Amino acid sequence: MAEQVMLPDPAMPDPPSFDGWTCPLPLRDHPTVVMGHGGGGQMSAELIEHLFVPAFSNPLLAGLTDSAVVTLGGAHLAFSTDSFVVQPLFFPGGSIGDLAVNGTVNDLAMSGAQPAYLSCGFILEEGVELSVVGRIAKDLGTAAELAGVIVATGDTKVVDTGHGDGVYINTAGIGLVRDGVDIRPQRAAAGDVVIISGMIGVHGIAIMSVREGISFGTEVVSDCAPLNGLVAAMLDTTPDLHVLRDPTRGGVATSLNEIAKAAGVGIELTERNLPIPETVANACSFLGLDPLYVANEGKLLAIVARDQADELLATMRAHPLGADAAVIGECVPDHPGMVVTKTAFGATRVVDTPIGEQLPRIC
Amino acid sequence: MAEQVMLPDPAMPDPPSFDGWTCPLPLRDHPTVVMGHGGGGQMSAELIEHLFVPAFSNPLLAGLTDSAVVTLGGAHLAFSTDSFVVQPLFFPGGSIGDLAVNGTVNDLAMSGAQPAYLSCGFILEEGVELSVVGRIAKDLGTAAELAGVIVATGDTKVVDTGHGDGVYINTAGIGLVRDGVDIRPQRAAAGDVVIISGMIGVHGIAIMSVREGISFGTEVVSDCAPLNGLVAAMLDTTPDLHVLRDPTRGGVATSLNEIAKAAGVGIELTERNLPIPETVANACSFLGLDPLYVANEGKLLAIVARDQADELLATMRAHPLGADAAVIGECVPDHPGMVVTKTAFGATRVVDTPIGEQLPRIC
Repeated sequence: MAEQVMLPDPAMPDPPSFDGWTCPLPLRDHPTVVMGHGGGGQMSAELIEHLFVPAFSNPLLAGLTDSAVVTLGGAHLAFSTDSFVVQPLFFPGGSIGDLAVNGTVNDLAMSGAQPAYLSCGFILEEGVELSVVGRIAKDLGTAAELAGVIVATGDTKVVDTGHGDGVYINTAGIGLVRDGVDIRPQRAAAGDVVIISGMIGVHGIAIMSVREGISFGTEVVSDCAPLNGLVAAMLDTTPDLHVLRDPTRGGVATSLNEIAKAAGVGIELTERNLPIPETVANACSFLGLDPLYVANEGKLLAIVARDQADELLATMRAHPLGADAAVIGECVPDHPGMVVTKTAFGATRVVDTPIGEQLPRIC
Repeated sequence: MAEQVMLPDPAMPDPPSFDGWTCPLPLRDHPTVVMGHGGGGQMSAELIEHLFVPAFSNPLLAGLTDSAVVTLGGAHLAFSTDSFVVQPLFFPGGSIGDLAVNGTVNDLAMSGAQPAYLSCGFILEEGVELSVVGRIAKDLGTAAELAGVIVATGDTKVVDTGHGDGVYINTAGIGLVRDGVDIRPQRAAAGDVVIISGMIGVHGIAIMSVREGISFGTEVVSDCAPLNGLVAAMLDTTPDLHVLRDPTRGGVATSLNEIAKAAGVGIELTERNLPIPETVANACSFLGLDPLYVANEGKLLAIVARDQADELLATMRAHPLGADAAVIGECVPDHPGMVVTKTAFGATRVVDTPIGEQLPRIC
């Protein structure tokens, strides 16, 4: 479904207000929720910055990381949540059940935590076949076993037909943060190297191919996978990893922009080094998409000091989920907060954060 | 909306199957999801027992308690989740934002934990006014502050118009379980006393009154409240509390049936001791409802050894959220797994678990 863009109305007399709550700028330009508010781009960031953070006023949420790191009973824990509204529910390489596990497992791993327990909340739409729910639950259970996490607690709600889309799932997860690691976007520093763990853009194109009924020659299969094993191997080699991020909604471009802004560094990518499968490249050129903005569900970005990059890369390539790992760029002191890419012709172009949503309901 | 009951078709040739997943009995009688699967009664229990527990095969989930108790990094933690799909979003005494905090805070408290951190996942429907989202977020933030918990991590997804209902919220929570407490339904024992912390049936009737546009004389205001403070006071007095349960969906009747079955005891209620506000009694008799089955969002059931009941009751009555606490029954060795009530006329009637949903989307 195309995004419904509402242009600001210069004649609008008052900001939308509800019982004492006034819509802050710049959200005021879009007084209703549009798909772009869920796209992981600028509109999502505005919603978080101007609506949720002031409402929940606390320092943890303002960090905008994939998971919060908290201390409870002396334990150093990562805590994270994600809702999953992907359509279709089943796609090449997985289902909403796999995504619900791996999405949260990966968010925890990106804090340097070993994921341990998941919660799982289903919102079912009246009329969906129980066999569909059963198959998704089975996928979820299998994915949890594969990732080595336990589904410890759950909840099921049912909504009337026409108020859901078969199955929505929320998972939250807790994990134990490894002693001595300090992984945060703020730690990216000029001179650091940017590494991607493998081929980009695969999940998004897998979803689009089934949703739009388009074949791109070879079937594109989602990369949906749990990254906690890869991260554990990386931390064994390189405990001083600076940043980890899984580039899901909004893709590599959005994740790197968030890191550049948080750390106040520039990031310079080398276009020819980006590992992009031919099928993804073809599909993107057909659909008018940029692979840098397409969602991944089994890839991570790592930012590390230059003198540790070779050893880290070797470790990653020795792991099945990091076999195609590559250095794709570096952090630079110039243009802080901005991501640029050097093209094959030596030109430089800005890789901005997308405003709304390129591919709706991709996870 | 009325529940759509699908009668079993004796001519149905095969159980519904999806790619190797076969619908187990007794779910087979309802091959699609109906509202009753989310009602917290027998159909919900069947879904958990026959579909989710086998899929997630692990001992924690099979306990069917409000929250799981796990050990991580040496810390003894409670972990719980709930999704909220209540309609309307705003009602007398609160909103979906208040419910989202108090529902999960209370689930954690029912394990004897002090809730510490919440996650919060929003599923927004395209087209809902941002001022509505903002007001809900503000309510959620205020409720978190009141309960003394921190919203540590969050997520926002947007679904197309016609696939949501304005705002759905999932919260998960973690809390620290107090040393030395062992609160589980299995600990209810013959001779124990059953205590309710206050007036029952208020939340459900508050929702129904606005949803149906019915006035019952006085406005009925939801009892939505965080119970962790009350529980802390109770545990100071009575660390050996046997069972705690907040009777939400399905009401007091459903919670007590679950406890009776888990512990293998009978429970005998004394009808005249049930604290029921006059407005709730009137509304229930008008709507054909039994207050024992109506949802509460700020009440708890406590089961405790008889010789500790007086002291515990005094502590509860000294707390603002326990002022109307009352002994409503006892655990008995007869009829294990069954709840009965003694009527004012000396007769005894069985208080069974409801099959489906009396009041849909109450939380």
